[in-house]
Amino acid sequence: MAVVGVIGGGQLARMMIPPATALGLEIRVLAEAPDASARLAATTVGDYRDTAAVLAFADGCDVITFDHEHVPQEVLRALVAAGAAVHPGPDALLYAQDKLQMRARLSQLGVPQPDWARVASADELSGFLADHGGRAVVKTPRGGYDGKGVRVVDDAAQVADWLSEGPLLAEELVRFDRELAQLIARRPSGDARLWPLVETVQRGGVCAEVIAPAPQTSDAQERAAAEIATTIAHGLGVTGVLAVELFAATDGRVLVNELAMRPHNSGHVTIEGSTTSQFEQHLRAVLDWPLGDTEPRARWGVMINVFGALPDDRIAAALAHQPTAKVHAYGKGARAGRKAGHVTVIGDELDDVVYRARAAASHFDVD
Amino acid sequence: MAVVGVIGGGQLARMMIPPATALGLEIRVLAEAPDASARLAATTVGDYRDTAAVLAFADGCDVITFDHEHVPQEVLRALVAAGAAVHPGPDALLYAQDKLQMRARLSQLGVPQPDWARVASADELSGFLADHGGRAVVKTPRGGYDGKGVRVVDDAAQVADWLSEGPLLAEELVRFDRELAQLIARRPSGDARLWPLVETVQRGGVCAEVIAPAPQTSDAQERAAAEIATTIAHGLGVTGVLAVELFAATDGRVLVNELAMRPHNSGHVTIEGSTTSQFEQHLRAVLDWPLGDTEPRARWGVMINVFGALPDDRIAAALAHQPTAKVHAYGKGARAGRKAGHVTVIGDELDDVVYRARAAASHFDVD
Repeated sequence: MAVVGVIGGGQLARMMIPPATALGLEIRVLAEAPDASARLAATTVGDYRDTAAVLAFADGCDVITFDHEHVPQEVLRALVAAGAAVHPGPDALLYAQDKLQMRARLSQLGVPQPDWARVASADELSGFLADHGGRAVVKTPRGGYDGKGVRVVDDAAQVADWLSEGPLLAEELVRFDRELAQLIARRPSGDARLWPLVETVQRGGVCAEVIAPAPQTSDAQERAAAEIATTIAHGLGVTGVLAVELFAATDGRVLVNELAMRPHNSGHVTIEGSTTSQFEQHLRAVLDWPLGDTEPRARWGVMINVFGALPDDRIAAALAHQPTAKVHAYGKGARAGRKAGHVTVIGDELDDVVYRARAAASHFDVD
Repeated sequence: MAVVGVIGGGQLARMMIPPATALGLEIRVLAEAPDASARLAATTVGDYRDTAAVLAFADGCDVITFDHEHVPQEVLRALVAAGAAVHPGPDALLYAQDKLQMRARLSQLGVPQPDWARVASADELSGFLADHGGRAVVKTPRGGYDGKGVRVVDDAAQVADWLSEGPLLAEELVRFDRELAQLIARRPSGDARLWPLVETVQRGGVCAEVIAPAPQTSDAQERAAAEIATTIAHGLGVTGVLAVELFAATDGRVLVNELAMRPHNSGHVTIEGSTTSQFEQHLRAVLDWPLGDTEPRARWGVMINVFGALPDDRIAAALAHQPTAKVHAYGKGARAGRKAGHVTVIGDELDDVVYRARAAASHFDVD
């Protein structure tokens, strides 16, 4: 009975519990707090930045994987030095931790992405702005998520606070029709499997809704997304699930926006919508077990994020009105604006699936 | 966040963990031993026959339900007296605990079942045999499962050991084409939902394989099974999942064989095969939450039981050869002949689904 250790006790670790239970795996979680979302499987409460705590947690695990990408490189490398199987490994995770490193490596791999530059001063940023129509996206290389650490600027002074901390990533402000995400899982021994390309609808920099598969994509877009994800997974040596967030640019290009090396919000729809969910596939991949089929279980799937809280009475109301909706509550205390759960509906008619998903989600705060 | 307490730590409790996790419920298990199948959710290790232990476990739970039907009536009634919500309740569970009580009550309800009699002596049994072609099925009223406590006899002397312990149930030996099972879930407030009728293939008195829906059943058989299950669920006041095992007799009758008031082996196929699995529906039902849709997710589903053990290397081999198969391992230590897991495949062509399920299961001991 293989033992999988997950660093981080958020909803991604929580959603690994069901497939671990099915596959007969023992899942152990290093949680930030006793009330973490994945507390059912928490064997340790501790700090993922504390090398000694992480090494102690890893002892007895057959593989170590992650709920998030924030474990410091020195902790990751101490794990590897101690003989732990770490998936994804530090060399790959680096590119999910540092956006400047990511852009540089994707350029080397020839992967299509927005024009970008490392800017270490207001002058450098002003130069980038001048070359790109006077506006750009500026990102802190580390620590950003869900729109945090990202600003759209037309003057270098707008990120003076960040520049004083170190170099930034400046990116072309891509005009896009919509955002897509390509999910892939790769085993250490090399085999990889893609799921169908999905559309992600963002509101306020946060994923609000996912439609699977992405409607009205061209074969060329699907091929481009699949090739990008495959190139990145193999090129960066990613193990486990890799999510590639993409822009479908108005000029027809498909460009890499962000990477995540773990199960990802854009893949929650696979729990019901795919023969193998991203959470099951991630566990199989990091164990170097055979990957599962990723065929859809229905023609369409729609996932809507829920924020704040999912009180029992609202869950019951949503289930009463939409008996085909699957409600996922992350077991978090109520906090405005925080992802607290999601709702998924799958079915054969897109209009109907969208209607039912939104009707179920309307019982909660959805944006 | 509702708290569900489950008495018994077997695979049925284990398989409640995934839907409890999804619905944001807290699940607590009273397990027989620290290595019980549902150990991940075990908050207490204790004896389900110990009233004080069960009362202590139930404290703080919003509802108490079960992995098995063996909790004594006096313990159940002590729970109710202490104010616990117990589902199914003792009045209903009685009929799953005592086969003589069950037969008598189903006769009152007018539910079709084999001819039967309570036999308290060799003479009474000889009389039943004489009236039924010289052969009958004899069952101990309590404690039997998976073929235990059941004998086919042609002479009362063959159950002399049992008769000395108390009255027995004698049943007509039904000639049947095949066995069916009708699953239903009912809320305390009365709403009930059926799943499609399934065929169960038994070997040596133990369920080996389930095909959903049952192939080649007539509309009349489906209506009969649905009516039987609905009558029993309401008539006995069952709350949670009720499984009705049925004979499809060669003379066209559909007759009740056994009842189970909990998720049941015949419903494991609903994990992948239904919009709402029996485990999720059971949790929703015992909480008196709205019941979910039970539409199939594919035209066919086949489940095959695995016995003995599911070593990791064989799981990996099964997954490698059948990427669409879903393997469920119950986390039990190896023991010959014990149900240790199951394999499910769903899809559109029955021949293909059966082939893939059997091919995956062939990596394990399946009967």
